[in-house]
Amino acid sequence: MNLEIKQSILMEYLNYVIRGISNKNMIPVLNCIKFELKEEGLYLLSTDNDIAIKAFIDKKEIEKINSYGEILVSGRYIYEIVKKLPNEIIKIEEVIDNKIIIETNKSSTNLNCNIPNEFPILDLSDSKNPIQMDKTMLKNVIRQTAFASSNQESNPILTGINFKCSGKVMEISATDSYRVSKKDIILKEEVKEAINIVIPTKNLNELIKLINEEEEEINIHIFNNKVIFKFDNIIFMSRLINGSFPNLPALIPTEFLLTIEVDFKEFYDALDRASLFTNEEDKNTINLVTKDNEIQISSNIPEIGNVEEIIEAVKNNDENIKIAFSSKYMMDAVKALECERIILMFSGEIKPIVIKNVDDNNLLELIVPIRTV
Amino acid sequence: MNLEIKQSILMEYLNYVIRGISNKNMIPVLNCIKFELKEEGLYLLSTDNDIAIKAFIDKKEIEKINSYGEILVSGRYIYEIVKKLPNEIIKIEEVIDNKIIIETNKSSTNLNCNIPNEFPILDLSDSKNPIQMDKTMLKNVIRQTAFASSNQESNPILTGINFKCSGKVMEISATDSYRVSKKDIILKEEVKEAINIVIPTKNLNELIKLINEEEEEINIHIFNNKVIFKFDNIIFMSRLINGSFPNLPALIPTEFLLTIEVDFKEFYDALDRASLFTNEEDKNTINLVTKDNEIQISSNIPEIGNVEEIIEAVKNNDENIKIAFSSKYMMDAVKALECERIILMFSGEIKPIVIKNVDDNNLLELIVPIRTV
Repeated sequence: MNLEIKQSILMEYLNYVIRGISNKNMIPVLNCIKFELKEEGLYLLSTDNDIAIKAFIDKKEIEKINSYGEILVSGRYIYEIVKKLPNEIIKIEEVIDNKIIIETNKSSTNLNCNIPNEFPILDLSDSKNPIQMDKTMLKNVIRQTAFASSNQESNPILTGINFKCSGKVMEISATDSYRVSKKDIILKEEVKEAINIVIPTKNLNELIKLINEEEEEINIHIFNNKVIFKFDNIIFMSRLINGSFPNLPALIPTEFLLTIEVDFKEFYDALDRASLFTNEEDKNTINLVTKDNEIQISSNIPEIGNVEEIIEAVKNNDENIKIAFSSKYMMDAVKALECERIILMFSGEIKPIVIKNVDDNNLLELIVPIRTV
Repeated sequence: MNLEIKQSILMEYLNYVIRGISNKNMIPVLNCIKFELKEEGLYLLSTDNDIAIKAFIDKKEIEKINSYGEILVSGRYIYEIVKKLPNEIIKIEEVIDNKIIIETNKSSTNLNCNIPNEFPILDLSDSKNPIQMDKTMLKNVIRQTAFASSNQESNPILTGINFKCSGKVMEISATDSYRVSKKDIILKEEVKEAINIVIPTKNLNELIKLINEEEEEINIHIFNNKVIFKFDNIIFMSRLINGSFPNLPALIPTEFLLTIEVDFKEFYDALDRASLFTNEEDKNTINLVTKDNEIQISSNIPEIGNVEEIIEAVKNNDENIKIAFSSKYMMDAVKALECERIILMFSGEIKPIVIKNVDDNNLLELIVPIRTV
């Protein structure tokens, strides 16, 4: 392998594949990036056995290809070396003894390599019926649901986001069993086969770092044990989590005793201040009481002090409620909604609270209240 | 105590005094901010027994003073509460049972207080002959020397910066015994009494965070065991370190075998790349060899690879040198100089290297080389 390429171009693509490398990996080849230089251009490939990332640099973007070939090189080192070089033409040349030389005018680096065929063989080919989705839509839906996932490995299925679809409506949801975040999106075309998969949340959080804000499509290829996202010149693969995801619609109340409309910012800021007088040992408990045209939010830590907040509210009937919940969970849920006005829906003091954007029925947040004495 | 004040104004000054509080302090009153409301305005005061910070808010900046008095309140809580409030008028009122109420239109917080007279008594009055210095000058000189201080408490005197002066020239220097950073500044007036004090570097690093970039003077009041900086509406006190600081001028070579002039950016970037192939167990060693009109910088980690950098250089004679040093120490020194061109001055392979800005003789960097086989 022997090529000449602009530093800025190589760096752009190294920035993608470096995310496929885990620093904690004990298997040396999994800390490597595989370079494959072919007639059509340069492929960069990384995997930690949980995700895989492949980026393609078209030959038109490469200054000079002197000879084809493949190398397997320490991801961290090649990344840091290229990053620290000026934006000039870099020559990368494979030499004998499994080494490469990275050269510019005045700088010359020798880097030892691994043997390319030690790298895992990954099948990144297309599925028969990929799903098309808008990039920004996918990015938003992951952001709006990921936080509700569990990070407890004891129940692996809850550490992922569920993508479920038959027909044109895709339900995307996450839960840690104390809260739910669920979004419905409308696909452009009906899916051919029903879908019900769970993708690890941490992998999706990596995926969204690779997706830019441009108005383009992403293709999602679903298989039995993996999912592949294709966009721009990038392929992102993630394993799936086996098991059955909780049937959330059955758990979400549909009839409500009382609904209350409040201003998003007023409510969020009041929660933020009330959260100061909560602590984790006490499940970050804050109290909410409704009155005529307002709600009162309060919290206290006896040794330190207490806070009381009043917020204007529009109620749908004369009922009143007194309920307690985690300030952290409520703030996460409200933040995910980010809108002008939100609606809080109550079914009773020990029943889940549903929270929605007044103007958008597609995103639903649910949190389980805390029983207090 | 009972006053009404704009959130943004109180916040501005809380931002100063919060830095005087150590989160690790086991003595509760040292985690507190003391509010003293007097006829002339509001004083805020904090101390961790190592530094003390006092800020003054003039009565003109206060909306309403209803009654004078003093309170001692948890620094962290008052800071977070005020920070999270909207920019409205806040009412702070002392109530019975050693409590305060912090109130806006819709938010009301009760905070338990400590007893004000438990707070240490601090003498922050002026010295007879304060030194005047430009704020920006002081800020720069601290930034240019602080990094060379030691962080090893085993030799306390080296954890501070030495300020030494008789006449009009003040020498400011720091060393960890492997390197020196030393700056000479010219005062506007001769000092009345010779000065030779050592101020803890970590305290000076806190001080510069409080100093804005405006072209104003700072007054430095030096006492036997403390130093007080007065600027804007702020008083900053630090203890001094007892002991005698090394006599650095005696250690700095004055005759050189060879001096070399190089471009700042080229040299720094080459060091940065070479630093990749060094590690701490090996003292971050990199090698420098001079040739006709260039210097070569190189480093290597046998298992991983090696790098070689060529930099154009202007030598003052035909001598050549081969020397090794810590990439980290050299990069810190070069960064402190930040200029167009720098000059490297060599007295021999095992003698200290002196580094200066070609255009400014007042800042001197010195690093001890590493002996290699």
